[in-house]
Amino acid sequence: MLAQMMQEPLLLASVLKHAETYHADEEVVSRLPNGVLHRYTYRDLGQRARQVAGALLSLGIAAGERVATLAWNSYRHLELYFAIPCLGAVCHTVNPRLFREQIIYIINHAEDVALFFDASFAALVAEIRPRCPTVKHWVVLVDADERPAETPFADPYETLVAPQAGVRDWPRLDENTAALLCYTSGTTGNPKGALFSHRTTLLHSLSTALPDALAISASEVVCPIVPMFHANGWGLPYTCPMVGAKLVFAGMHTDGESLYRLFESERVTFAGAVPTVWQGLIDHLQTHRSTLGSLRRFLVGGSACPFSIIRTMWDDYGVTALPGWGMTELSPIGTLTTAKRKHDSLSTEARLGFLTNHGRPLFGVELRLVNLDGEPVPCDGHSVGELQVRGLWTIERYFKDDESALRDGWFPTGDIASIDGDGYLTITDRSKDMIKSGGEWISSIELENIAMSHPAVAMAAAIAVASEKWGERPLLVVVLREGRAVAKHDLLAWFEGKVAKWWIPDDVQFVASLPMTATGKLSKLTLRKNYRNHQLPVKGE
Amino acid sequence: MLAQMMQEPLLLASVLKHAETYHADEEVVSRLPNGVLHRYTYRDLGQRARQVAGALLSLGIAAGERVATLAWNSYRHLELYFAIPCLGAVCHTVNPRLFREQIIYIINHAEDVALFFDASFAALVAEIRPRCPTVKHWVVLVDADERPAETPFADPYETLVAPQAGVRDWPRLDENTAALLCYTSGTTGNPKGALFSHRTTLLHSLSTALPDALAISASEVVCPIVPMFHANGWGLPYTCPMVGAKLVFAGMHTDGESLYRLFESERVTFAGAVPTVWQGLIDHLQTHRSTLGSLRRFLVGGSACPFSIIRTMWDDYGVTALPGWGMTELSPIGTLTTAKRKHDSLSTEARLGFLTNHGRPLFGVELRLVNLDGEPVPCDGHSVGELQVRGLWTIERYFKDDESALRDGWFPTGDIASIDGDGYLTITDRSKDMIKSGGEWISSIELENIAMSHPAVAMAAAIAVASEKWGERPLLVVVLREGRAVAKHDLLAWFEGKVAKWWIPDDVQFVASLPMTATGKLSKLTLRKNYRNHQLPVKGE
Repeated sequence: MLAQMMQEPLLLASVLKHAETYHADEEVVSRLPNGVLHRYTYRDLGQRARQVAGALLSLGIAAGERVATLAWNSYRHLELYFAIPCLGAVCHTVNPRLFREQIIYIINHAEDVALFFDASFAALVAEIRPRCPTVKHWVVLVDADERPAETPFADPYETLVAPQAGVRDWPRLDENTAALLCYTSGTTGNPKGALFSHRTTLLHSLSTALPDALAISASEVVCPIVPMFHANGWGLPYTCPMVGAKLVFAGMHTDGESLYRLFESERVTFAGAVPTVWQGLIDHLQTHRSTLGSLRRFLVGGSACPFSIIRTMWDDYGVTALPGWGMTELSPIGTLTTAKRKHDSLSTEARLGFLTNHGRPLFGVELRLVNLDGEPVPCDGHSVGELQVRGLWTIERYFKDDESALRDGWFPTGDIASIDGDGYLTITDRSKDMIKSGGEWISSIELENIAMSHPAVAMAAAIAVASEKWGERPLLVVVLREGRAVAKHDLLAWFEGKVAKWWIPDDVQFVASLPMTATGKLSKLTLRKNYRNHQLPVKGE
Repeated sequence: MLAQMMQEPLLLASVLKHAETYHADEEVVSRLPNGVLHRYTYRDLGQRARQVAGALLSLGIAAGERVATLAWNSYRHLELYFAIPCLGAVCHTVNPRLFREQIIYIINHAEDVALFFDASFAALVAEIRPRCPTVKHWVVLVDADERPAETPFADPYETLVAPQAGVRDWPRLDENTAALLCYTSGTTGNPKGALFSHRTTLLHSLSTALPDALAISASEVVCPIVPMFHANGWGLPYTCPMVGAKLVFAGMHTDGESLYRLFESERVTFAGAVPTVWQGLIDHLQTHRSTLGSLRRFLVGGSACPFSIIRTMWDDYGVTALPGWGMTELSPIGTLTTAKRKHDSLSTEARLGFLTNHGRPLFGVELRLVNLDGEPVPCDGHSVGELQVRGLWTIERYFKDDESALRDGWFPTGDIASIDGDGYLTITDRSKDMIKSGGEWISSIELENIAMSHPAVAMAAAIAVASEKWGERPLLVVVLREGRAVAKHDLLAWFEGKVAKWWIPDDVQFVASLPMTATGKLSKLTLRKNYRNHQLPVKGE
C-alpha cells in the first residue's frame, strides 16, 4: 500500500529556492582574477540563475544536453551550477588541469553543445576549439567589454545574461534527471564520466551537512577551496545554499597568502581543500607569524592528509581537521573522520591520532570488504579486503557505458582497506598494487614501509611478478642511499619477524632511480611493465 | 536524460541497518513500568527487530496491513516501529489518551489486524476488544509469564518473539510504501489518519538532524519524552539510530522527579517534550534545589512554550530551548527556532526573546500565507494570512479520503500567521477562530488580550457572528471578575486606539462562565453555536 503524501521531487531548484527565500540576505563572496571581491546575496543568486537560464534557452540549449564549464570557483560558476541542471540540462565541469588531449577527449565524449569558460583559459579554448565540433556556443565569463583577444568567437557572459528577464518557474523534472557530469581520470585508459542526478546530488548534500559529517549551518562561513571542477566541489556549492551558510569563493588564488587574507577579511569558519593547499597556508602563517582569527575546522581530502598538517593546524592555530575519503563516483564523499560519544574520554593526543583513519560512512553509504573471490571479509579492524560501496549517491555505470560498473550490486573502489567494528575505514593500498599470492593479498605499501625503515634504503617499491606456483610473488625494487650498501640476503632478512614469512619478497633489484608519473607519483605501472618477465630465483637459490 | 546512479530506495530498513552496522555498540535504554532500566545496543535492536518481523510473519501479517500499537516509549515499541514498516506493513500508533470511543473509531477505521499493547492498558483493551472486529491478534508487550489477568486472549510478546530466528533480508520496498499511520484529533468531527511513507519519514529524519534543526549526532544522548504515539515521536525514534545517538526512553514516567533521575543517570544531553512536561521538571528542580548535569538543549513543541520556561531553563540550569512548530500532517516538524549568523551579535536577553517566535522552515518545507481569497500575502513580518505548507513530508490527503486535503497544491494548516524576510514564523491565531469582516481578518486572540487587560475582566472570548453587511462581525463574550463591573459602552471604549476602529467588537455579552472542551481549552465552537442567531445592535444604537 502506498502512502498518501505529497509527491515532491528532490530537485536542485528547491535548494536554490530555499536559499533565495529563507536566506535571502546571506552572502556569496567571490575573489575575481584581478583580486577584487565581488559580493551579492542568495536573493541575487536566485534572480541571476533565472536570467542565466533565460540565456541558456536563448542559445537553444535543450533538456538533456551537456553544457560544459571550464572555470574557477566564482558566483558565475555557481549560477551555472544551478541554471543548467535546473533547466534539465547537464552541467559538465571540465578540469582545466587535465592534459589537453584529455580535455578534448571528454568534451567530444560528452558531446557538449556549449562551453562557458574563464578568461584565464582563453588561450587553451582557442587551441582546442577546432577539435571540439559538437560545441556550438562559446561563452566567456566576463563583462561585455572584457572579451579576451584570443577568443573573438566567444560571447561575453554578461552580454547574454543582461537582457534576460529570467525564467519564472523552474520545470518540475523527474528527480532522476541527470544534473552534473564529471570525468574521473584513472591512471590507465581514457577519463570516464560520472553522471549524477538531482536526487543523488541533493541527498549527498543533505547527508554531508549533518552534525557528524561537515556540520554546516547558517552560522558558518564556508570557503570551498576545492575547485568546482573537482568532484562537484565536494558538494559544497549546493550544501551551503541548502543550509544558508555564507559562501566564499577563492577563485584561482589558492596560495597561502591569498587564502589567509580572504579567510581573515570574510571571517571564514570552514574550508575544504587537498593537503597541499593546507600545507601552503601553514607555510605562509609560519613565515609571517600570523594567526587565524575565524577558521575553526578544515575539511581535507583528495589524498591522505599528512599527520604534520593535522597536528600543526591544531597545536599552532586551534583549527580541527576533518579528514574525509571519497571518489568522484561517490558524488564524492563516502566517509568522514568524526568521533563518537565513546571517544569523549580520549586525550587531545589520542584524538589527533584518531584523525589519521579515513572515517566512518555517512548515512546513505554502505561499505563492505571482499576477498579475491568476491566473498565478504569481516569488518574487525584488521582483516583487509577490496573496498566496495553501495548507497544513495553512488554511480551504477559510467556515462555512455553499456556495462554496469558494479560487481554483485556493489561499486568496486579499487582500494584495499580494513574497517573496524564502529565503521572506521583504513585504506591500506590500491587494489592493483596489491600482490596476489596463493589466493591471498600481500600489501605492497607495507613491504615498502619495512624496506624503507632499513638504514641503507632511500626508496623502495614492491611489485607483483608472475609466479607459476603462486600466481604472483613480490619483487622489491630498491634505490640505496648515497654511500650505503646492503646485501640482497641481508635486506630480505630485515623482513623476518615483521611480516608473515610468505609475505617476504622473493627477490630484490637494486636500481639507480624509480619511474615517476607526470604528477610526481611512483609509477608502479611502469615498474610492473619493466619487470614483467623478471625470473624469480628458485627457493633456496 | 536520466542519470546513471544506483537506484537505492529511501527505506526505514536502511536506518536500522546503518545503526546496527556502524553504531552497533551504542545503547537504547528504556525505563520499564516497574522503574527498572532495560538496556541493550543497536546491534541487539537489529537482531530483535528481525525476530519481531518473524513473529509478525508467523501471525500472517501481510504487506499493507495495519498493525496497531498502544504503548509507551520503550525498546519493544521501537522494535515494532522498525519491524512492522520494514516488512511492508503499516505501524499504526494509537494514542491511549484519546476518548475510548475515538480509540474504537480509529482502530475500526484503520482496520487494524493486530494490536500490540502495554500491560498498563490491559483493562482498556479488554473493554474495547468486542468492538474491534478487524483485530485478529492481541499481543501484550510482556514476558511469557507476565500476561495480565484482564487479557487472557492476548499473546505475550516474548512468547512470540523468542522462537524466531529472524528475518534475514528486509524486502526491497517501493520507497513510497506506507510505513506509519497516525490519527490527528481535530476539534470537530472524527479523527483523521495521516499515512506516511518510508521516503517521507526518512527525509524528515534526515533534515531534522541538521545542525540548524535538532543537531543530533553520535555524541548526543537523546530522550524523546514525547510519546511515540504522538506524531511519530517527532521522528526521534528514527533520527537517533540514523545518526547513532544513544536513545533513552522514559516510558510512562514523565513526571519531574522521574525525568530528573533518568537524565542524570543516563547523562541525557537532549530531550523533547510539550511545555507542561518541562514545567514539571522545573518544579521538581526548584523544590529540591537540584541542577542538571548533562542536559544541554531541550526541544519543545505541541503548543506554544511559555517564555518563563525558556527563561528559567537558561538562567537557572544553562539549558537552551529549541522551540518548534509542526503538525501530525507534517510528519510532524515544520519549523525550528534556530538562529542565523546575523544573530551572532544579539545579547543573551535578545536571544532569549528571539526564541519566542515559531522558527524558520527546515530544508524540505515551504511556507506561504494566503488571504481570504487564497491569494499569496507577502512575507514581510507583519502581514498576516492563513499558513499553507508544501514539502517533502507533507500529507496529500487523509487516509481513506477520496478528496485531496490540498488547496492549489498546498496544505492549509488552519493557522493564521505572519512570516518575516528570514522565514521566521509567528502564529497569531487559528483560522477558524478569526473573524472575517468585509473580506479582512480580525484576530480573536488580539481582541481577547485587550479585553482581558481591562481590570474588570476575568475571561473573554471574541467570536464571529453573522452580519448581513460585513459577512461576520466580532462579538465579545465576557466573564467579569468577582465584585467588579464595567458598562458595555466603557468596555468597548477600552479598545479605542489599541486596534483599528473596524476591529472593535459590535457587542458585548456578559456571562457567568465560558464553555470548555474536555481537554480544558476554551470551546469557541460551543460559543459560536450558542450565539449563532445573536442580533448585533444597529450601528449607533
